[in-house]
Order: sequence, then C-alpha cells, then structure tokens
Amino acid sequence: MSKHLERDLEQVEKSLLALSAKVEEMIAQACRALSERRSDLAESVIESDADVDRREVQIEEEALKITALHQPVAIDLRRIAAVIKINNDLERIADLATNIAERADQLVLFPDFAIPGTLEEMAERAITMVREALDSFVRLDIATAERVCASDEEVDAMNAELIAQLREAMQHEPDKVEPALHCFSASRHLERIADHATNIAEDVIFLVQGEIARHKHETPSMG
Amino acid sequence: MSKHLERDLEQVEKSLLALSAKVEEMIAQACRALSERRSDLAESVIESDADVDRREVQIEEEALKITALHQPVAIDLRRIAAVIKINNDLERIADLATNIAERADQLVLFPDFAIPGTLEEMAERAITMVREALDSFVRLDIATAERVCASDEEVDAMNAELIAQLREAMQHEPDKVEPALHCFSASRHLERIADHATNIAEDVIFLVQGEIARHKHETPSMG
Repeated sequence: MSKHLERDLEQVEKSLLALSAKVEEMIAQACRALSERRSDLAESVIESDADVDRREVQIEEEALKITALHQPVAIDLRRIAAVIKINNDLERIADLATNIAERADQLVLFPDFAIPGTLEEMAERAITMVREALDSFVRLDIATAERVCASDEEVDAMNAELIAQLREAMQHEPDKVEPALHCFSASRHLERIADHATNIAEDVIFLVQGEIARHKHETPSMG
Repeated sequence: MSKHLERDLEQVEKSLLALSAKVEEMIAQACRALSERRSDLAESVIESDADVDRREVQIEEEALKITALHQPVAIDLRRIAAVIKINNDLERIADLATNIAERADQLVLFPDFAIPGTLEEMAERAITMVREALDSFVRLDIATAERVCASDEEVDAMNAELIAQLREAMQHEPDKVEPALHCFSASRHLERIADHATNIAEDVIFLVQGEIARHKHETPSMG
C-alpha cells in the first residue's frame, strides 16, 4: 500500500472514531435523561443528531475521494467499503439514541413510574459494544469483534427480561401502561443499537478472515 | 463510462432488484401471517432470511469486484457506493420482516385478539415504499424518490395512531396486554422498514443532485 493511501485511510478512520465517540456519548446522555428524568439532556441529544448527519456525509465523501484518488484493491478496497458501512451504522445508532431521548422527554411526565434497573445495564452494555466494535475495526482485532457478537445475546436476554417486567406491570396497573410503553420502546432501541454494533463487528470479522462470518451470530429478537 | 463497466453495473443492479423483490415478498408474507394467524407463512419468512443474507454477501462482492476491475470515478463510483448501502438496507429490511414473522408466530396464540386494520395499511404502504425506492435508484428518478420520502411521514402517522389504539386496549383490558405488545412490536418494525426505504430514497436524491438531501426528511418517530 502506498504511503499516501495509508495516511488517507488512517485519517478517515480517525474521523470515524471521533464520530463513534460522539455517538456513544449520545447514547449515554439519552439514558441518563431517561433515568434522571432530565429534559435538558434529552434536548441536547436531539440537537446533536444534525451534527452527526453532517459528519456522516463528510466521512462518506472522504472515503469516495480516497477510492477515486488511490484506486485501492483487495484488502484496502474492503477497508474503505467497511468505512462506508460502519459510518452508515453510526448514523443509525445516533438516530436510535435520539429516539431514546424522545422517550425520555415523555417519561418526564411520569415521575412516579420506576424505570427497571435492567434498562441502565442494557445501555452500559450497548455503549461498550459500540466502542469495542469500532476498536476491533481500527485494530483489525477479531477477538474483540467476537466479544461484541457474544454480548449481543446478553443484550437480547436483558431485553426479554425487561419486556416481561413491563408486561407484568401493565397487566396489573393500567395507569402504568403509558410510561411502560415508553420504556418498552427505549429498550427496543437499545437492542437495535446492539444489533448495529454486532453488524460492525461481523463486518470486521469478514474483513479479516475474508470469509462469510456475517449473519452467523444472529439471534431472533424478543418482544 | 466504458461498455464493460456499464454492463457490470447493470448486472449488479439487476441482482439488487431481484433481492428487493424477495424482501418485499417477505414483508407481505409476514404481514399475512400476522393477519391470518398462519404459522406456516411465518416459518417460511424466517427460513428465507438465510437466503437473503447469502445474496447480500454476493452482491457486495460483485460491487467490490467492479470497483477493483474498472476503477470508476465520479458518478459511477457513487452508484457503486449506493449499491453497497442499499444492499445493506435490504438485508436489514429482511431482518425486520423476520421479526414481524416472529411476532405473527406469537399472535397465533391469541385468536380472539382483533388486529387493528391500520397495521395492514402500514404494511402495504411500507412494501410500496421499498419497491419505489429501488425503482427510483435504478431509473435515477428523483420524483419517485421524493414520493417515498413523503410516504414516510404517513407511515409515522399511522404508527402513532396504531399505538394510541393499542394503548387504549391495554389500559382497559389487561388480558390484551400481551397480544397488543406483539402488535406494537410489529408496528415498530414496519415503521423501521419505512425508514430504511426512506434512507434508500435519500441516497438516490443525493446521488442525482450531488447535494446533501439526506436527513432532510427525518421526522421524530412515535411510540
């Protein structure tokens, strides 16, 4: 690989890592908005979404410029294709964080509704998955990518547990239906964030092994 | 553009259209499984998912081969990048159709629960959106792409209406909480399918106009 191509690839991967850090912060903030009933944090997440959209477009432009300029082949071409897809995943994750913030904004109206602790655990796990998925890409590290895929099943299990708890609450206390549905939605969004992180990790495994690792780790979703 | 590049691009776009037809059929089948309480149709959708996964990998390989072989630039390079992203969207849509089929499989256990008619309307609209999004890509037709973006708001409105109906049912009849939650999930999956179709349409507008049309049409999700 030419020095110039290497430098440009490193540069675009750096932009991708910075975008990921921003997106991880949005997930954390949205979940804090939820648990601490803070509309101000929710608003801040919703406002960040436009910035992420702009950065996604810039990164894709960068990746296309590198391709046109250096005409990479084989593994380098695959790395750039992975940048384009991961970039797309990060933008979707930011959308989901925004959706969680919107639920948080609604839950502010139900101060007496106890949010199950499982939701916070799920959020922490999902954030770690996103961070590790990006790390595994930059370091082309299969072990980390496989850990992300394994975590997905745990998040699915937490989601199923949370849904069972919320269903129980709704069945016994009709007053809780509305806030429980907001929690239900937030839980689904977190589960989808974990799915995106898993897709990124599968892309990394595919990139390194050149095999069809993708879709191997899929499990049915719950709820 | 060289004749060879043109021929290869047409070929990969043909594969993408065939994949889309398959995915549209999966959505329709999953929704029929839901409304007619048919486990056999649900199973058939779930089984199709592995085939879609294989085809997605093949199409991406084709797209990368074309890039390495012809080293396209400008609009041709953008078209190939769009193929890679749209391909990815179609695979996610198939996952969502599979999720709907899983809900259908659960709803079979609640034969007395009346599924709101809005769900069927949403499904029809979502399928049309996917088909039109692909058409707009192949024909580079902005008017069709814009129609898809406009439909997204209608689907969001239907989703909000459906959620209000289901919430009402759950608040008044605790027995309905479980089946209503399955419907709630199916509705969210349809709303997400419409989002993917909108992403495809936005990519087409971006491709044709070379402007930042993406993210312009986003509306907050409901529920």
